[in-house]
Amino acid sequence: MPHTSPIDPVDLTAKLVRCPSVTPADAGALDILHDILSEAGFTCAWADRGGIRNLFARWGSKGNTRSFGFNGHTDVVPVGDEAAWTMPPFGAEIKDGIMYGRGTTDMKSGVAAFVAAAIDFVQTTPPDGSVVITITGDEEGESVDGTLALLEHMERHGERMDVCLVGEPTCPEKMGEMIKIGRRGSMTVKFRVIGKQGHSAYPHRANNPLPAMMRLMDRLASHELDAGTDHFDPSTLAVVTVDTGNLATNVIPADCTAAVNIRFNDTHSGESLTEWIEGEVAAVRQAFGVQVETHVKISGESFITPPGDLSAMVSDAVAAVTGVTPQLSTTGGTSDARFVKSHCPVVEFGLVGQSMHQVDEHVRIDHIHELKSIYSRILQDYFA
Amino acid sequence: MPHTSPIDPVDLTAKLVRCPSVTPADAGALDILHDILSEAGFTCAWADRGGIRNLFARWGSKGNTRSFGFNGHTDVVPVGDEAAWTMPPFGAEIKDGIMYGRGTTDMKSGVAAFVAAAIDFVQTTPPDGSVVITITGDEEGESVDGTLALLEHMERHGERMDVCLVGEPTCPEKMGEMIKIGRRGSMTVKFRVIGKQGHSAYPHRANNPLPAMMRLMDRLASHELDAGTDHFDPSTLAVVTVDTGNLATNVIPADCTAAVNIRFNDTHSGESLTEWIEGEVAAVRQAFGVQVETHVKISGESFITPPGDLSAMVSDAVAAVTGVTPQLSTTGGTSDARFVKSHCPVVEFGLVGQSMHQVDEHVRIDHIHELKSIYSRILQDYFA
Ligand SMILES: [Zn+2]
Ligand SMILES: [Zn+2]
Repeated sequence: MPHTSPIDPVDLTAKLVRCPSVTPADAGALDILHDILSEAGFTCAWADRGGIRNLFARWGSKGNTRSFGFNGHTDVVPVGDEAAWTMPPFGAEIKDGIMYGRGTTDMKSGVAAFVAAAIDFVQTTPPDGSVVITITGDEEGESVDGTLALLEHMERHGERMDVCLVGEPTCPEKMGEMIKIGRRGSMTVKFRVIGKQGHSAYPHRANNPLPAMMRLMDRLASHELDAGTDHFDPSTLAVVTVDTGNLATNVIPADCTAAVNIRFNDTHSGESLTEWIEGEVAAVRQAFGVQVETHVKISGESFITPPGDLSAMVSDAVAAVTGVTPQLSTTGGTSDARFVKSHCPVVEFGLVGQSMHQVDEHVRIDHIHELKSIYSRILQDYFA
Repeated sequence: MPHTSPIDPVDLTAKLVRCPSVTPADAGALDILHDILSEAGFTCAWADRGGIRNLFARWGSKGNTRSFGFNGHTDVVPVGDEAAWTMPPFGAEIKDGIMYGRGTTDMKSGVAAFVAAAIDFVQTTPPDGSVVITITGDEEGESVDGTLALLEHMERHGERMDVCLVGEPTCPEKMGEMIKIGRRGSMTVKFRVIGKQGHSAYPHRANNPLPAMMRLMDRLASHELDAGTDHFDPSTLAVVTVDTGNLATNVIPADCTAAVNIRFNDTHSGESLTEWIEGEVAAVRQAFGVQVETHVKISGESFITPPGDLSAMVSDAVAAVTGVTPQLSTTGGTSDARFVKSHCPVVEFGLVGQSMHQVDEHVRIDHIHELKSIYSRILQDYFA
């Protein structure tokens, strides 16, 4: 059996951050992990699809009685306004105990921590079972060729996880304070309102699509969807963009577009929300005499792994390492847990997510070490 | 006194159309007019400013008792989608009695018609008075170095018009049907709403600027400014663009921009409308906790030359030549009449404007002749 020295999760995070792996680019990130895991005795396989790299790795035999899984992603969202960054976005520079860079929080440090914990664990106390690691390069993008491709690969090759821990950042402010046991559903609706172009001095000869769009978006944005349920926060709707692209102030534009993103709890389904939106669209269509095209994309329905053995085990490990008893939550954005859910029970635990997707995204060095310790302890408990 | 043969206004229009004088380019158009007017005994002077050519011409002495003025422009708007033109945009080609090209309607034929009429008039029946012609190369652009520069030149040199006729196209569909005795004011307000960027799954951590913008634009667009006045149509407000440029549906944008264009009658002023808008902005700023930047540009206040001697004289000439009694109107876009107004009473009369600023802009040849006849008749009546 091969043997390597322990992996430093901070060093591994920095190596990954220095790969500018903005979806769909991989920029070498998964190769680094492939090499480390192979060297540590994991059987690695690529589950690439649609131009996306996806890494499957298993320690132990395929038919083992117990199989613990980790899931994560190495792709990151774009840098945004690069001029606003005070540190190089792909530099992984460390200052005052904090590492800066796109993906430091979401979620290259999470990946580094579970990879380091898994390697340590299988090398120091080889378990009677398997440790499976699935890492995708398409979580921040369309997510159609990422974890879904990994799960299909596993299905096809008879691979299995009995439980799975997704290493996404889950803590709002304080390390250890939150485990996610489910997620709200997510859907995006794109709109195009079509009127009739004209000169802004003769509005009666045109039909401006913008007032209709303003009314529609105002109605959608100010509607209270629900007040929350037992395990779920209230559903939210965010108007994420409205665009016209008309540079001439004396021209009434022919059309304009918009998109809204809805995060919904178990009060709703993608279908029920689509119906509500179509009703609002019909009202605006009639009131303003415009055409409205809609395009609905349901990224995931809401789901939950009810509190039980898995969440209790993760909760105990978090409390033992951090001294904080985590809350079981279903808040936040979608994650690939929504796909894993159909394979096995899944919970998510990771870092403080505050700076994710923002300028000067960063992670505390001591949190990376704590996270590795928590993942190690979970592995020990699971196979104990 | 010099003497030339009569000017053919169709031939002169064609010569001017063949100069591609897209603002700020002159492309020789004003030189053609300078030469023709000088040869016909007009005293010509250049009132160039800021890279723009402007031509001042006077027949008769400076101190004459009566001075009739014409105003027009030789600059044109860009060709736009050249591939969509079925005729060369600067070819002045004639087919079935119609001349095609950018500026044929707006307003090289108007300029050609009043230049031809003025030359004919002063040569065949020299009046006891002056005929002043002011032609600018900056009406379609910013209009800051055009007719304003000509009026300043006149002020500086003690030049005077007692009344002025602007030769812009004024008829919506039928030759002779409309004289403009004023114009609504025009202003453009640009908005930038600034919130706080974030992840669309955590809207409470961000502050989405879009709902505030939607509410603000909806309020502005659905407000009835007035119901019209004696001489004016109701004021209108057109939201001309709203833009965000956010491509990521999981990101709440930091800011968004919009622009509205207002055409207002004498119920309002640029100042009163700015005050109204600032009030609406303040309400939205408070309700949504966003920052809002506004940038107001008043292109012109509303103005009117109340129906009287001048409009009656123009009206009679139009009716005599075309058989149509024109309506006195204040509709439509701005023109340089808004500047001339502060110098002397001003009305506008010209061609059918339907194809102005469009692909395959064109003018009927018989309309050019009719227009010259109308302008000739007005000169005869004025000095009679
Ligand atoms: Zn993530
Ligand atoms: Zn014009």
